[in-house]
Amino acid sequence: MGIPSDPKSLIDEARDGNRAALARLISRIEYRNEDTKKLIEMLYPMTGKAQVWGITGPPGAGKSTLVDRLIAKLRQQNKKVAVVAVDPSSPFSGGAILGDRIRMQQHFQDDGVYIRSLGTRGRHGGLSHSTKEAVLALDATGFDVVLVETAGVGQTELDILKLAQTVIVVLVPESGDSIQVMKAGLMEISDVFAVNKSDRPEADKLVRELVANVGLNPHDEHSWIIPVCKTEANRDVGVDELLFQVSNHQEYLEKSGKKAEKVKAFLREELVDILIEGLRNSLDSVLATDGGAQLLDQLYQKKIAPYEAAKVLSGRT
Amino acid sequence: MGIPSDPKSLIDEARDGNRAALARLISRIEYRNEDTKKLIEMLYPMTGKAQVWGITGPPGAGKSTLVDRLIAKLRQQNKKVAVVAVDPSSPFSGGAILGDRIRMQQHFQDDGVYIRSLGTRGRHGGLSHSTKEAVLALDATGFDVVLVETAGVGQTELDILKLAQTVIVVLVPESGDSIQVMKAGLMEISDVFAVNKSDRPEADKLVRELVANVGLNPHDEHSWIIPVCKTEANRDVGVDELLFQVSNHQEYLEKSGKKAEKVKAFLREELVDILIEGLRNSLDSVLATDGGAQLLDQLYQKKIAPYEAAKVLSGRT
Repeated sequence: MGIPSDPKSLIDEARDGNRAALARLISRIEYRNEDTKKLIEMLYPMTGKAQVWGITGPPGAGKSTLVDRLIAKLRQQNKKVAVVAVDPSSPFSGGAILGDRIRMQQHFQDDGVYIRSLGTRGRHGGLSHSTKEAVLALDATGFDVVLVETAGVGQTELDILKLAQTVIVVLVPESGDSIQVMKAGLMEISDVFAVNKSDRPEADKLVRELVANVGLNPHDEHSWIIPVCKTEANRDVGVDELLFQVSNHQEYLEKSGKKAEKVKAFLREELVDILIEGLRNSLDSVLATDGGAQLLDQLYQKKIAPYEAAKVLSGRT
Repeated sequence: MGIPSDPKSLIDEARDGNRAALARLISRIEYRNEDTKKLIEMLYPMTGKAQVWGITGPPGAGKSTLVDRLIAKLRQQNKKVAVVAVDPSSPFSGGAILGDRIRMQQHFQDDGVYIRSLGTRGRHGGLSHSTKEAVLALDATGFDVVLVETAGVGQTELDILKLAQTVIVVLVPESGDSIQVMKAGLMEISDVFAVNKSDRPEADKLVRELVANVGLNPHDEHSWIIPVCKTEANRDVGVDELLFQVSNHQEYLEKSGKKAEKVKAFLREELVDILIEGLRNSLDSVLATDGGAQLLDQLYQKKIAPYEAAKVLSGRT
């Protein structure tokens, strides 16, 4: 199959299950140009069917194995699954954390699975925006579940998880004191906890602490009580229960009307991202002109102060 | 000493060495309101004397000990030193990485040292902006060296380091294969490498690899060749050499005219940050109105597509 270049045919092919077309579509969204906008506008009316799940946890928690298990089980339910593995390319984590190529091989023959890595290199805070639009594209091209996996540990990753409807936080006994977990605000983003490698010593202690802390959260009869699942992903233990709890949460969101809130929050951030990206582009253009260079020079020479200079610059965009 | 609240007196007190006033000044900059702008505009003409250094490295590399040694040595040279410890509050790193309170105690009696942590909790990508303005404030209040220390490992931290003139990257033999270091683009941000805990096995191997990789960088007689220093911060070994190399780099920046470029790049980002912050605030306001809610609802119901909705929104800001 060839890959058509005109937007409509490209989208049609991607929706028909042409993998190369889908890959090209996501790449064209990553390019962030006028074409990206056109594609998103065309894709948007086709969205709204996918569930968007997030999964995060510290390095070594076994996220990848767990994700593979989740994929396999969702496939048994005949659901199409896309994984967006987001790696803000930490320079110290070293290389192919996500190993999407290896994982992709495993599912290569399966049209119902698509795994894609997104990275940031060189882009200013645009990763969360690209991720949102990749999620829209995967939703529009017929995936039932879009699973956003973050490699780990920073503020960028947490921001990205906000776009998911259901967030699974994977911890292992070694993740440390659950009090730290609380402090760090993981409670706020988590909808389901998975204590993985739960055959290890201290696993029960972590589970108990998490359950106790969940109980401390202010709640009434309408609240979602974050379940704590024990899993051993590599032996396929507890993964069904995890999946069940995720379904429960999705059902809870639907029934409580909170799903619409989540989708609207996603769309709100998409709007903000679009306008900020537009401003950045326009500032890049203006600052590249002679006038821009002169303004910067005046600022450098302290003939003008920053907020005043920003106001002048704003008048030129 | 009391803390005056009017901006001019507050700045005067901070410049006179009143610690409480300085702390209040930085806090008021962190608040991000109209007052922040006024303070920055007043401080800006007093800036331009400080050297801005950055220091980063993986957790456990011994950055804090190294920073303490650098402070002690700079104090021997009678230089005033401020440390801005930036922690994008990773939820998995667990608590008080930076231990600024403990470290502050050590230097509590010394008016020539000021250590301040900045965190992100809840703020969207604004940490790099707050850090820039804290650096301006510390420069304006008479510090000779402002050392920006990042806790570690993500994209946010790398963005923050771009504001420094000289970046020290601290590695330890366990940091792993230097090829990974190259891939991850640490070469691009590093001006001086410190191989800390250099008494450990494999340290020499890491040094050799770094030196070899530095040599592979395209360079001519005008280029800065990144030096690789061996340090053992806890025994005070190699720290003088490190300091010497940092001074060399600052001298190189001055002589080559690259210091002006670095300062202008800093100011350029400050302008962009100011305008983006302004846009975010204005979008928050518009989206909080009935009209904003209606637009979001139309988008949710797919009566309008994202880029079109963004254009409508833009017309209302």
